[in-house]
Amino acid sequence: MSETSNLSTLSRIRVVLVQTSHPGNIGATARAMKNMGLDRLVLVQPKSFPHAEATARASGADDLLARAQVVDSLAAAVADCQLVVGASARSRTIPWPVMEPRVCAARMLAEAGQGAEVALVMGRENSGLSNEELERCHVHVHIPANPEYASLNLAAAVQVLTYELRMSALAAAGQLPEGEILERDQPLATSAELESLYDHFACALATLDFYDPDNPRQLMRRLRRLFNRARLDRMEVNILRGILSAAEKAAKGKARG
Amino acid sequence: MSETSNLSTLSRIRVVLVQTSHPGNIGATARAMKNMGLDRLVLVQPKSFPHAEATARASGADDLLARAQVVDSLAAAVADCQLVVGASARSRTIPWPVMEPRVCAARMLAEAGQGAEVALVMGRENSGLSNEELERCHVHVHIPANPEYASLNLAAAVQVLTYELRMSALAAAGQLPEGEILERDQPLATSAELESLYDHFACALATLDFYDPDNPRQLMRRLRRLFNRARLDRMEVNILRGILSAAEKAAKGKARG
Repeated sequence: MSETSNLSTLSRIRVVLVQTSHPGNIGATARAMKNMGLDRLVLVQPKSFPHAEATARASGADDLLARAQVVDSLAAAVADCQLVVGASARSRTIPWPVMEPRVCAARMLAEAGQGAEVALVMGRENSGLSNEELERCHVHVHIPANPEYASLNLAAAVQVLTYELRMSALAAAGQLPEGEILERDQPLATSAELESLYDHFACALATLDFYDPDNPRQLMRRLRRLFNRARLDRMEVNILRGILSAAEKAAKGKARG
Repeated sequence: MSETSNLSTLSRIRVVLVQTSHPGNIGATARAMKNMGLDRLVLVQPKSFPHAEATARASGADDLLARAQVVDSLAAAVADCQLVVGASARSRTIPWPVMEPRVCAARMLAEAGQGAEVALVMGRENSGLSNEELERCHVHVHIPANPEYASLNLAAAVQVLTYELRMSALAAAGQLPEGEILERDQPLATSAELESLYDHFACALATLDFYDPDNPRQLMRRLRRLFNRARLDRMEVNILRGILSAAEKAAKGKARG
């Protein structure tokens, strides 16, 4: 099987909600999923569905609700799945392989990319998944929350886990920027342009009689550090030089006046 | 300044909500923050606060609501901050430095750890932050959502961003497991114990007349691969050997009978 881990692979990962009590959480889950590019929602014995509150919280993701599959058991929800991941608060009698969301998302995406059917199973709002349900899972995923207040809202947990799936898919597709995106609408200034700017500063500051008598070089060093750190673009250099020219002109006019 | 990036640093990062319309989102934000170990919430001109819906959605995080600071302007909310990060949908007239959540969280945590006051500013449910508000920020953070359905619920966005802050803090504190956590309640089997198990399998399968006539070695290879992959613990080895012994006994009894 070829590895084709990319954004379309997200469609091969279903989210299964087990016995959800509040329809609002079903709607918020659908919205979180669609925001992250997932689209297959399976509901095991939802208490109230369809429901106006689900539709309201789904916002524009009501298409996921309309296509949601409602089934009678977890077994039916995951029958065709090769990888079943259960969300767990991790305090179970029988320890089980547990992953944090980032590592788990990478695994889910990799297996889905190799053709596996993958399920992310989320438990009830108050009691999560039962031990029997957790034992049906290959691995458990645990969000490392504040131990003093560890219970996330159901849809919030889905948001975190599907966010990690999307980040993993973006990384696999080479679409995840590693650092700061400098969204520039102008080309960056060249070294020569910057040196001209610093020369202009030096001249203008002399014209303005503005210098540090104790250490005249210190001032230029600080200006260089500031503007180099800011990574000036060509237009910014032109703006600064325009200001310096205006200041020079004013100083000369004043000297003449 | 010393670098002390750890979990307590999270308390030095405030979340600022600007003109939130729905009090439920304020409560859900407080819950998301507390789940991730943040505790400073600042509200700029909330439409309705305090409000029963905020308290309901906060679940057990009503202490954060009780301590939330309500102010009249974004300027007042961030006046003492050295790093101001604004959540952005990234389609602005003036491009601005934009980071994805992971990179941005690392930066926020590092600066907070060095003593800076840090703010994460979240805009209105429908229209986000204005250009003027975004220009007050040092950097923008953008959640790389599905471009066809990019607008996250306010509290869901806070959940993702504070999750990344917590993950960054856990990583800095050396508390983030890199891979699968094998929660074991038994010591792993040693190589010698596994070899004894495989010998036992070979004997038992011979006793049971169970073998692959075309390739007798292939079966043992598959069993080795299965159990090595599963990383058996000592108790599991004992269980399997118990089953083999019982099978051997049954086969011999049947042979005698």
